[in-house]
Amino acid sequence: MSISRNDIKDAYQQIQNHICTQIERADGKGRFVSDHWTREGGGGGHTRILSHGAVLEKAGVNFSAVEGKLDERLKKHLKTDADAFFATGVSIVMHPSNPHVPIIHMNIRYFELDNGIYWFGGGIDLTPHYVVEDDAKFFHSSLKTVCDKYDGSFYPKFKTWADDYFFIPHRNETRGIGGIFYDQLKEHEGLSKEEIFSFSKDLGMLFPTVYSELIERNRNRSFSESEKEWQYVRRGRYVEFNLVYDRGTKFGLESNGRTESILMSLPEQAKWFYNYQVNKDSNEQHTLDLLKKGINWI
Amino acid sequence: MSISRNDIKDAYQQIQNHICTQIERADGKGRFVSDHWTREGGGGGHTRILSHGAVLEKAGVNFSAVEGKLDERLKKHLKTDADAFFATGVSIVMHPSNPHVPIIHMNIRYFELDNGIYWFGGGIDLTPHYVVEDDAKFFHSSLKTVCDKYDGSFYPKFKTWADDYFFIPHRNETRGIGGIFYDQLKEHEGLSKEEIFSFSKDLGMLFPTVYSELIERNRNRSFSESEKEWQYVRRGRYVEFNLVYDRGTKFGLESNGRTESILMSLPEQAKWFYNYQVNKDSNEQHTLDLLKKGINWI
Repeated sequence: MSISRNDIKDAYQQIQNHICTQIERADGKGRFVSDHWTREGGGGGHTRILSHGAVLEKAGVNFSAVEGKLDERLKKHLKTDADAFFATGVSIVMHPSNPHVPIIHMNIRYFELDNGIYWFGGGIDLTPHYVVEDDAKFFHSSLKTVCDKYDGSFYPKFKTWADDYFFIPHRNETRGIGGIFYDQLKEHEGLSKEEIFSFSKDLGMLFPTVYSELIERNRNRSFSESEKEWQYVRRGRYVEFNLVYDRGTKFGLESNGRTESILMSLPEQAKWFYNYQVNKDSNEQHTLDLLKKGINWI
Repeated sequence: MSISRNDIKDAYQQIQNHICTQIERADGKGRFVSDHWTREGGGGGHTRILSHGAVLEKAGVNFSAVEGKLDERLKKHLKTDADAFFATGVSIVMHPSNPHVPIIHMNIRYFELDNGIYWFGGGIDLTPHYVVEDDAKFFHSSLKTVCDKYDGSFYPKFKTWADDYFFIPHRNETRGIGGIFYDQLKEHEGLSKEEIFSFSKDLGMLFPTVYSELIERNRNRSFSESEKEWQYVRRGRYVEFNLVYDRGTKFGLESNGRTESILMSLPEQAKWFYNYQVNKDSNEQHTLDLLKKGINWI
């Protein structure tokens, strides 16, 4: 029996719960608050926010399942003559307090049209304020392991896709050390819809494991005021990426999505200094040197 | 004799100097530092930044005069078959420390193609963290006086244009209390190129007079920590407008402009809280109630 949209919706909802439980455990102090919302036109969501935890300054885990008519603009955009759509997904961004703990983002999503066309999309990417090569290797290896379970071509393909997607042209920098990004994924040679669905669930389940480990490795490292300042600057770049380039953010804002759930990805606090310069041979410069496409972290 | 592009460039450069001198006087402590830059492809600019003055936390006054070949994308965008362009202008954004002093923005610009087509554009708009009706009236009246010198239709037309332009759809708020905005302005019934040029210079000269007055009126007002927090939130909205909607910012970033000069408009520090709410009957709510199009401030 084929999986239904409700199966996917239910699974994603459970993944949201699992992630929140695990991340609360990793943080040790913060608790997620809940915001249920409905969408004019059909469906709704559940936004969960943790603020001022022991590790996390601001963390959002959003689940949504929405449906509705496709307007002309959307039909054109999707190059379809279908009349209605259904979309469900989980979106996460977490901003830690300690600049030695990385920012992380994850998204898994499923999209379906009423003419039977469907696809999965998603990704996980890591944005360390200070790149730690061992952590980067651990992060990418973990993603590769999940990818390899399904298709040997997934990791190299989706890793390159992430490098290209999470890129800030006007800074000539990647947002962070990348990860994986995929879209329009449907059944193809040797891989069924069930397996692609399963791939997305595995990524959702991997998320708290990987991030908890990165938290544990770095949460007790001390930091200076200037390292904190650098974190605010890097968060500024994160804001630039999300507001100028991120397709999900742009699509959400343009299509009259729920603003607070879309912009939960922004850090609590960010800074911009004119022509901010870092010292030669500093840790900041070392990180800048690694914000490039095409690095093999494994 | 007709005015040349060099006349306009020189006048705008002098206006930049005048503004910096007057704003240093108004601030009383801060000094503008200079950054001269050249543009690959032709021309360059002079960015002046004042940081951590007595009143101004971050203020940028940018002058540029650039020229070059029109690539295919730009030809299409401008619907022209001209081969080369020249553009000069002054752009300003000032972020004060005290939340009772408003954020201000000004731009005057001139654009010319090698087929003889030209136009002027520009605007001034005010973004108070707390709207003061008297200040709003003073600000709009000052703009109207300059507009009326040239054309009785300018103020109502350009005021409406500003309301529509400086608007944040995903917040359903105007950026601030508006001002004037105009574009594609060229000689027309009764108004010569010289007069339109003169209008833009008058706006440039008006800027420091008006802003100095607004600084004087509000610089010594005391503020609480929660008012400071509100300022950071309003600055966050300013960032959202500039990065998501502002055409000058988007065009600059896309056309490989000088990133630091474009993004000098961003505040030194901004904040985003999930679902930030203000108290009923508070000054913050009063301001939100006035962030609407179509208010007659005079």
